Amino acid sequence: MSDLPEAGLDLLFRAAQTHHGWQDRPVPAQLLEQVLDLAKMGPTAFNQQPLRVIFVTTPEGKARLSPAMSRGNHDKTMAAPATAILCYDLEFWRNLPELWPQADVQGYYNKSLDAARESAQRNGTLQAGYFLIAARALGLDCGPMSGFDKAKVADAFLQGRPWEVNFLMNLGYGLPEKVNPRAPRLPFARMAEIV
Amino acid sequence: MSDLPEAGLDLLFRAAQTHHGWQDRPVPAQLLEQVLDLAKMGPTAFNQQPLRVIFVTTPEGKARLSPAMSRGNHDKTMAAPATAILCYDLEFWRNLPELWPQADVQGYYNKSLDAARESAQRNGTLQAGYFLIAARALGLDCGPMSGFDKAKVADAFLQGRPWEVNFLMNLGYGLPEKVNPRAPRLPFARMAEIV
Repeated sequence: MSDLPEAGLDLLFRAAQTHHGWQDRPVPAQLLEQVLDLAKMGPTAFNQQPLRVIFVTTPEGKARLSPAMSRGNHDKTMAAPATAILCYDLEFWRNLPELWPQADVQGYYNKSLDAARESAQRNGTLQAGYFLIAARALGLDCGPMSGFDKAKVADAFLQGRPWEVNFLMNLGYGLPEKVNPRAPRLPFARMAEIV
Repeated sequence: MSDLPEAGLDLLFRAAQTHHGWQDRPVPAQLLEQVLDLAKMGPTAFNQQPLRVIFVTTPEGKARLSPAMSRGNHDKTMAAPATAILCYDLEFWRNLPELWPQADVQGYYNKSLDAARESAQRNGTLQAGYFLIAARALGLDCGPMSGFDKAKVADAFLQGRPWEVNFLMNLGYGLPEKVNPRAPRLPFARMAEIV
C-alpha cells in the first residue's frame, strides 16, 4: 500500500470527531496495548520515546480521577470505559544508551531540567498525536481533554515518578448522537505558506 | 471502514521510518495542501488550531534555511523537495470567536503569554503529530528534525509574526537505502500501566 484509501482518510481524519458520550461496551486491555504498540513506532528525537500512559479503567481508578475533573468533563470521563492519562517522562534520557546506542546523547538533556522538559514535552506530545490516530485506526473513538486539575491527577497517579501530566483522553465506543456539529477549520492560507 | 486494514497500519506506523535521503522527485504544492487539510481535522482544545507551517520548496527558500541547519541535518535538508517549518501561533486565541463561537474562551489565553504558549505548544505539537501521519497516509516519506538553530530560522522566515518555531520536517519520496535500521522501542510495561 503506497497511500491510504479514501475510507481510511475518513476514518482517521475527515469523518472522525471528538466524542462526549460512551456506549456501555468495554475496551479490552489488549486493545489498549495495541494502540500504544502502534503509536510508539512513530519517530521521536534520538528515539527518546518520552510518552508515558496511565490507562484508568477500573471503578477504583475512576474514583481517584473524579475529584480532578472539571465540571464539563466529569460525567463523560466517569462513563468512558478507559481514560488515558498522557504523561511524559522528564528522565527519558536515562533510556538513551539503550534506545540510541550509536552515540552518547544524554548530555543534551541531563544537565538541565529545562532542556529535558522541552524535549519531553515536544516528543511526548508528538507521540500523543500518533496515539490518538492509532486509536482511531484500531476502531476506537477518542475524547481528548485539557479541562482538569493537573496537580490533583499527579498527586493521585504519579506516585513519585518523574513524569508530568500532559492531557487526558477518553477512549471507547462513542455515541454518535452526543457528537457536536463539526467546528470550522482554518483555510490553508491562514495556516501556511509555500516559499 | 471501522478500522484500518493491516497494510494501512504498516504504511502509517509499522513499516514507516524516518528518511535521510531523497529521490529527485518533486512534491506538488497541491499535495502539501492536502496533507495540511487532513491534519487540521484532528482535535485541538477549543478547536484552537495553533499549527502554522512554512513549506520551503524553492532554491531561494532553501538558501535561507541553509545557515540554520546543524551539520548532520544540512545536506539532506537541502536535497529534500520540501522542508516544513512547523510553528505554533502564540496569538491563536484571536481566532477563537470564529473557531469556537459557542462560548467566549479567549480569556483562558490572552491574559498571559505563558498560558498562550503552553496551549499553543501542546496543541500545535499534537497537530504536528497528525501532520506526520497525514503525510504518510498520502504516500509521502518524512524526516522530522530538531537539530537546527531556532533563532536563525525565526529570523529568516517569521518576519515579525507572533509564531514560534517548533521543529522541521523534510518531506518527499525517500531513498530506502538511506534508512537506518529500526531502533528499539520500549515494551508496554515501561511506558504504561492499567489501573
